[in-house]
Amino acid sequence: MAQIVITQGDPTGIGPELLLRVADAGLLLPGDVVVAGRDWLHTLAHALDRPWATRGLARLEPLLVGAPKIGQYAALEQGVDMILNVRGRALVTAPIDKAAACAEGLRHPGHTEYLAERAGTDEFAMLMAGPILRVVLATIHIPLRRVAELLDDAAIVRAGRLLARSLLDEFAIASPTIGVLGLNPHAGEQGLLGDEEITVIGPAIEQLRAWASDHALPVEFVGPLPADAGFPRHRAGGLDGLVAMYHDQGLGPFKLLHFHDGVNVTLGLPFVRTSPDHGTARDIAGQGIADVTSMTTAIELARRLADSRVRLDTAREVDDP
Amino acid sequence: MAQIVITQGDPTGIGPELLLRVADAGLLLPGDVVVAGRDWLHTLAHALDRPWATRGLARLEPLLVGAPKIGQYAALEQGVDMILNVRGRALVTAPIDKAAACAEGLRHPGHTEYLAERAGTDEFAMLMAGPILRVVLATIHIPLRRVAELLDDAAIVRAGRLLARSLLDEFAIASPTIGVLGLNPHAGEQGLLGDEEITVIGPAIEQLRAWASDHALPVEFVGPLPADAGFPRHRAGGLDGLVAMYHDQGLGPFKLLHFHDGVNVTLGLPFVRTSPDHGTARDIAGQGIADVTSMTTAIELARRLADSRVRLDTAREVDDP
Repeated sequence: MAQIVITQGDPTGIGPELLLRVADAGLLLPGDVVVAGRDWLHTLAHALDRPWATRGLARLEPLLVGAPKIGQYAALEQGVDMILNVRGRALVTAPIDKAAACAEGLRHPGHTEYLAERAGTDEFAMLMAGPILRVVLATIHIPLRRVAELLDDAAIVRAGRLLARSLLDEFAIASPTIGVLGLNPHAGEQGLLGDEEITVIGPAIEQLRAWASDHALPVEFVGPLPADAGFPRHRAGGLDGLVAMYHDQGLGPFKLLHFHDGVNVTLGLPFVRTSPDHGTARDIAGQGIADVTSMTTAIELARRLADSRVRLDTAREVDDP
Repeated sequence: MAQIVITQGDPTGIGPELLLRVADAGLLLPGDVVVAGRDWLHTLAHALDRPWATRGLARLEPLLVGAPKIGQYAALEQGVDMILNVRGRALVTAPIDKAAACAEGLRHPGHTEYLAERAGTDEFAMLMAGPILRVVLATIHIPLRRVAELLDDAAIVRAGRLLARSLLDEFAIASPTIGVLGLNPHAGEQGLLGDEEITVIGPAIEQLRAWASDHALPVEFVGPLPADAGFPRHRAGGLDGLVAMYHDQGLGPFKLLHFHDGVNVTLGLPFVRTSPDHGTARDIAGQGIADVTSMTTAIELARRLADSRVRLDTAREVDDP
C-alpha cells in the first residue's frame, strides 16, 4: 500500500481536528507521515475532550513529524521535501489560510501553483473528483467577461491530456471516454449561439484525438457537448470525465452533486496530490463538528491513485528492464 | 381540481405516445381537454399494439378535440384559444418541431414567445422546476462572449419578481427565500474576479428587496451567491429558488439533477403553463420506449399550480368582494 504524507494546513482551521478524526477512524497506516504541530494537536485534543479525539491523538503520535508548533507554510514545505521523488508516496494537504500562509512566506496563489513550481512543471491542472463526476477546468479564476477571449486550444489540450493520463494511469480505467464541453448554450448550435466550438474547441478536440492516436492511448474524446447534456451523460456512466471551459460551468454541477465528498486532485505532478475541496472553516474550528467526509475521501483516493501508479511503474519495469 | 388542456406537439415525435401513456396511467381527469389528431392517435395505438396504448386511447377519446389530423401549430392555437381567460385551466404542451411548426405558420422562436404574445405580455420568463431545484434565467440564448455586456439589472429584477410571485402564488410557499447567483467565479470575490456583482447584480438585488417591501411580500432575496455555493444550498433546502445569470450556469446543474423529472414552466402568463423539458425525440418516436417521467411531472405540476391559483383567487374574492 502506498504511503501518505499529510500536511496540517491552517492550525487554527479545521485541519487538525480532521487529522484526529481520520486517525481515530483507522485511515492512517504505519509508514504514513503527518506533518503537524504536536503542541497544537495536544491542546486541541485536550480542549475537545472527546473519546475520538483522545484515541485519534494516540494513533497520530507515532506518525508525527515537524516542530511542536509548526506553521502551515513550513509544514507544507517539509511535506513536499519528504515526498519529492519518493515513489509510492502521495501528498494530502489540509486547507491553508492564504493570507496567513503568505505572511509566513508563501509566494503563490495557492497549494496548486506552489506544488507545480516545486515539481518544476507548468503543465498542471486541477481535477475535481467525486464518487460520480470527474471535472477538469480549461480556465479557472478569470472574470466571465474575459473567458471567451482567454480560452485557447492549448489550455483545452493541456487539460484533456492530463485528464486522460490520470484516468488511464491513476484511476486505472482501461479505455476512458472524455467529454469536452462547449462554451456557449447548446454548444453554440452550429454557430448560431457563438462560434468558439468551431474555431477553438473543435480543433482542440482534433488535437487531442491525434495525440491519443500518436501515443496509442485507448482514450476517446467526444464533444463539444452542451453542458446540460454532458453532465447528465457523465452521471449516467456514459463518460469517465469532463473538460469544462470555465469555473462555474464545471464547479456548479460538481459541487451540487459532491458538496461533501468531492476531492481536489492536482494533475501533472510527479506524485499524487489530493486535498479536501473545502476551506479552513475557521468559524467552526475546534468544536468537533466539522464534516470529515471530504478529508476521508481525499486520503482514500490518494492511496488508491498512488497504488495504481506503483503497479503501472512496476509493470513498465518488467516490460522494459 | 383544475382542468388541464394538453396540446399534442409534433405528431411525428414522442408527444402522441406520451399522451397514450399518461391517459393509461390515469393522469387525465374528466373535464381535461386534449387537442390532438384522433387519426394520428388511432394509427399510433394500432402500430404500437400494446395493452397500455389501447387502454390509453380509450381513456383519451372522451377528452379529444381538434381535427382528425390536426397539425402541431393548429393544435397549439386551438389550445390557447380554449384556455385564455378560463380560470383554473392550465396548459401543458408536448414538444414541437420548430422547423415544421414554422412551415405551418408559427412565427416565434418557440412556445414561450408565442404564448407571451397571445397573452399580451412581455414580462415573462422560463422557469425550470424539478422535485428539488427551481431555476429561472436572467439571460438565455446568447453567446457566452456577450453575456456580461447584455446582462442588466432589469433582466435580473424581472426574473426575480416572476419567480417570487410564482413561489408565493403557485408553489404556495409561505415565505420563500430566493438566491441570486453571481456572474463571476466566487461571485467576483469582492471585485477581484469581475465587477458585475458590484455594478449590476447587487443593485438588482436591492431593487428586488425594495419591491418586496413595497408590496409587503414575505420573500427574501439573498446574494450574489457563487454558483458552486448556491446550488448545494438550494439542494439542501436553504433556498426555494435561484436566479441564474445565464444558460449553462443554470441548466448544467439543473439537468444534472433533473434530467428525467425536470419541467419547464412559463412565468408571467395569465394561466399556468408547463411542458416536459425534452424535445420531440423523433429518433425514438413510435417505439413505445420514450420516458414519460417529464410529461407526467408536467401534468401533475400544472394541476397543482393551477389549484393554488384558484384557491388564492377565491381567498382574494372573499377578502375583497
